[in-house]
Amino acid sequence: MHAITISEPGGPEALAWAEVPDPVPGEGEVLVEVAASAVNRADIMQRQGFYDPPPGASPYPGLECSGRVAALGPGVSGWSVGDEVCALLSGGGYAEKVAVPAGQLLPVPEGVGLREAAALPEVVCTVWSNVFMVSHLRPGETLLVHGGSSGIGTMAIQLAKAVGAKVAVTAGTGEKLERCAELGADILINYREQDFVAEIKDATAGAGADVILDNMGAKYLDRNVQALAVNGRLAIIGMQGGRKGELNIGALLAKRAAVSATSLRARPLEEKAAIVAAVREHVWPLLAGGHVRPIVDRELPMSEAPDAHRVVEESGHIGKVLLVTP
Amino acid sequence: MHAITISEPGGPEALAWAEVPDPVPGEGEVLVEVAASAVNRADIMQRQGFYDPPPGASPYPGLECSGRVAALGPGVSGWSVGDEVCALLSGGGYAEKVAVPAGQLLPVPEGVGLREAAALPEVVCTVWSNVFMVSHLRPGETLLVHGGSSGIGTMAIQLAKAVGAKVAVTAGTGEKLERCAELGADILINYREQDFVAEIKDATAGAGADVILDNMGAKYLDRNVQALAVNGRLAIIGMQGGRKGELNIGALLAKRAAVSATSLRARPLEEKAAIVAAVREHVWPLLAGGHVRPIVDRELPMSEAPDAHRVVEESGHIGKVLLVTP
Repeated sequence: MHAITISEPGGPEALAWAEVPDPVPGEGEVLVEVAASAVNRADIMQRQGFYDPPPGASPYPGLECSGRVAALGPGVSGWSVGDEVCALLSGGGYAEKVAVPAGQLLPVPEGVGLREAAALPEVVCTVWSNVFMVSHLRPGETLLVHGGSSGIGTMAIQLAKAVGAKVAVTAGTGEKLERCAELGADILINYREQDFVAEIKDATAGAGADVILDNMGAKYLDRNVQALAVNGRLAIIGMQGGRKGELNIGALLAKRAAVSATSLRARPLEEKAAIVAAVREHVWPLLAGGHVRPIVDRELPMSEAPDAHRVVEESGHIGKVLLVTP
Repeated sequence: MHAITISEPGGPEALAWAEVPDPVPGEGEVLVEVAASAVNRADIMQRQGFYDPPPGASPYPGLECSGRVAALGPGVSGWSVGDEVCALLSGGGYAEKVAVPAGQLLPVPEGVGLREAAALPEVVCTVWSNVFMVSHLRPGETLLVHGGSSGIGTMAIQLAKAVGAKVAVTAGTGEKLERCAELGADILINYREQDFVAEIKDATAGAGADVILDNMGAKYLDRNVQALAVNGRLAIIGMQGGRKGELNIGALLAKRAAVSATSLRARPLEEKAAIVAAVREHVWPLLAGGHVRPIVDRELPMSEAPDAHRVVEESGHIGKVLLVTP
């Protein structure tokens, strides 16, 4: 088969669509013939040499895919050859075929196209596990989403609105904020021109955000704590603004607030399977009902992975950038 | 009645047993004739002028008491004059009488003396709300308690052992560690001589602590994060080591860990009542069954409150220091 290989760590040009051996599904795994994968920031870090695949994972990038079941490994039940699926991967999505633990497979939801479904696994699992399973966002509460127009952001807006929460977003352009508003965001904050702490307080009668979904890490840590409401929960899922920051414990304690940080990729199989099962139970009906949908910025052929990475690195996109097989 | 008043912020000598007006129980409140109160670090901070009572609270120190119900305010049911009780207070325990919202009252548990019961409300509510309600300590997990011989520490050890957890403690002397061991602590760490990160890793085959109950704040923040296990939860309830510290978000994220910080005093009535109700359901049977008991270092007369504060400030005690009415 073909897959995107990384000749040596570097820029987008390091990505090459090359002939490689087919993967073989092991015990409990399913072989998927890939229709599409999607670009995540972790793929860019992997390409740059800053984020090696965990032990046992495919060496090729790609943390999610959609496609058709091509073969079942030993001990797999509940899936059949030909099923249309999407999957959370620990790598290897940028390829014609990938082997995936059966617990990380999901059916393509009703009303969602086969390629489009590749836009779902990472964002849905990340948002559901952080905003709902860890931070327990409740109806009537306010969620602040940093990077509201990203893949994660566009899904967080929709899921939070679907459960009856109020949603605030930050983004860097008026066009991005407008797209967030179309998806249901109530409070729009241009982080280049406005102070998000002042804006969120202003929009919540001084209360602040009950839950914050943050991809900036250190750079926003202090301001995120300031922006939290009493009993607030800050969920950090990215460190685009650095890994170490000053935590104002006094402010956190006065608010009885909490800070959590997670990633999906390094979790053991059983935790991933538990998240996938929760997503299938709670989010799949929302997709089938048309209340939530995948937001796709563009589709590019796998061989144009370098261009796809450039788009994401320049943050010129809204929603997900897909890579489709020939 | 008499109460301990604070003439002006300062040292222990600022505390005086003086004649003051009787409190009057308001709507939903109960008047308690105080048998005993207990010293908390927050009382010392209040005496020093660093921790003013919240709006509406008694101006006198004392965050807990035991005694007998002396009168019921309007709208109170479920309690009778003469009932032996203990109570979580937002202030006013260092007095002959105190008015308390009925939701913060608990019966004196079977097998516990009336004065002794004053040692329970703050430590039981603090440990239960943080270690169990926020951090969800589970059987088989490891809890690390800083200051294991304190009032909080001695209760945390007993409650964690009662639910089947493994307990590690830090303390500053061999004698204190020995008392922790008598209460059930499995892993004893002398923080003056040993590195608690290395010790907890060593004692858990490299895994670290699933939950840490911390009273040090900034000073221990980085080492606490190092000491956490994967999926670990750090619960901060004090800032004896400072209010602002560097948080290693990268380490937190790699462990999918969380940091929370809480205090009891500033919570709204309904949150306090919910904690008191949970404690009555889950902890009171353990006290009645003799599995958990209040640990009292000494009893002093209310008028010797200055000496009681000196004892706690010098950390010469193990468990709680009580103040008893004449």
